[in-house]
Amino acid sequence: MKIGVLGTGMVGHAIGAKLIQLGHEVKMGSRTATNEKAAGWAKANGANASHGTFTDAAAFGEIVFNCTHGVASLEALKQAGAQNLKGKILIDISDPLDFSKGMPPSLSVCNTDSLGEQIQKAFPDMKVVKTLNTVNCNVMVNPSLLSGDHDIFVAGNDAGAKAKATEILKSWFGWKSVIDLGDITGARALEMWLPLWVRLMGVMKTPNFNLKIVK
Amino acid sequence: MKIGVLGTGMVGHAIGAKLIQLGHEVKMGSRTATNEKAAGWAKANGANASHGTFTDAAAFGEIVFNCTHGVASLEALKQAGAQNLKGKILIDISDPLDFSKGMPPSLSVCNTDSLGEQIQKAFPDMKVVKTLNTVNCNVMVNPSLLSGDHDIFVAGNDAGAKAKATEILKSWFGWKSVIDLGDITGARALEMWLPLWVRLMGVMKTPNFNLKIVK
Repeated sequence: MKIGVLGTGMVGHAIGAKLIQLGHEVKMGSRTATNEKAAGWAKANGANASHGTFTDAAAFGEIVFNCTHGVASLEALKQAGAQNLKGKILIDISDPLDFSKGMPPSLSVCNTDSLGEQIQKAFPDMKVVKTLNTVNCNVMVNPSLLSGDHDIFVAGNDAGAKAKATEILKSWFGWKSVIDLGDITGARALEMWLPLWVRLMGVMKTPNFNLKIVK
Repeated sequence: MKIGVLGTGMVGHAIGAKLIQLGHEVKMGSRTATNEKAAGWAKANGANASHGTFTDAAAFGEIVFNCTHGVASLEALKQAGAQNLKGKILIDISDPLDFSKGMPPSLSVCNTDSLGEQIQKAFPDMKVVKTLNTVNCNVMVNPSLLSGDHDIFVAGNDAGAKAKATEILKSWFGWKSVIDLGDITGARALEMWLPLWVRLMGVMKTPNFNLKIVK
């Protein structure tokens, strides 16, 4: 499958590399066509890996992963272009973490709104599925890195898109438990988990952890 | 030990009853000295159970539990009186859930502040420990209700108060894993977990669940 990955940070690199390993064709997009991190990633990941602008990556992908920093996501998607995203599934991994006031980061949107909702609202013809934003990129693509069972979540308005995202999480990435939180307003809950995640990372001295819901 | 429990809702009832079972003397406080729910609770819980105003309960307790609704907590503590709370540990279980705009509730404070911090700031001579607000009252006092291991958190500025709270959680209530999130700003993380908790309650059709951190 042809997949667009927006963003050249750790998350984009990890997701892109995993998708390449799975045999997909991946184009990593960034603000400029000559981004060094994107070019380096493409060079390191073989013939199925390429790079270009956000527009190029969105037009290329049958499915698109949003791996941009949350505070830049809406602008990146605007550059990608609504016409290139129309009807497509956007796997939205971004978190609206605002580091501009130092550590710990605050959220640039929360409580009565979320980045996932803002993205869905700005691109109504795209099918946004919020997922994977609750874990570090190492865990996203390799959940068996952690011992025992643990959970990942999906939230989105389109049932078909959530089913496809769930298939990607389970069959491609190896997640065993995917909890459906309902419509895209569930993104509020998933993004507001971040302050606890950040705090726990400090306590546990590792970003490689996750939560398991216990009944 | 003499313990004050502020609040006459489900949380106050559950915490109060558990403390009575453990052999402590408990005074439940509310806005008025004649609150029917507090009187009913005291009547049902034997000679060691009593009730009165917030002031009465705060003056009575060597330790005080804040089980009031979060949006009313600061006013309740004001009524309790700084002089009655001075030097005491306040176990702050409250969540700033605002139901005034319908379901799902939003938080009346979050992101760059928290109710736990507001309480500590308003009562600097009291030792606030934020804990237990992340689970339903059934689980608070009976963690073995759930299968397997799961975690509870503490956040607060006073190390001695956190050590006492941890002893209460472990020795009195039966918690096996207590994670220290650091100072009272950790209350932001613990209160911002609530949106995910509320969403999960809807999905799982039960309030009796918790999270376990998996490494």
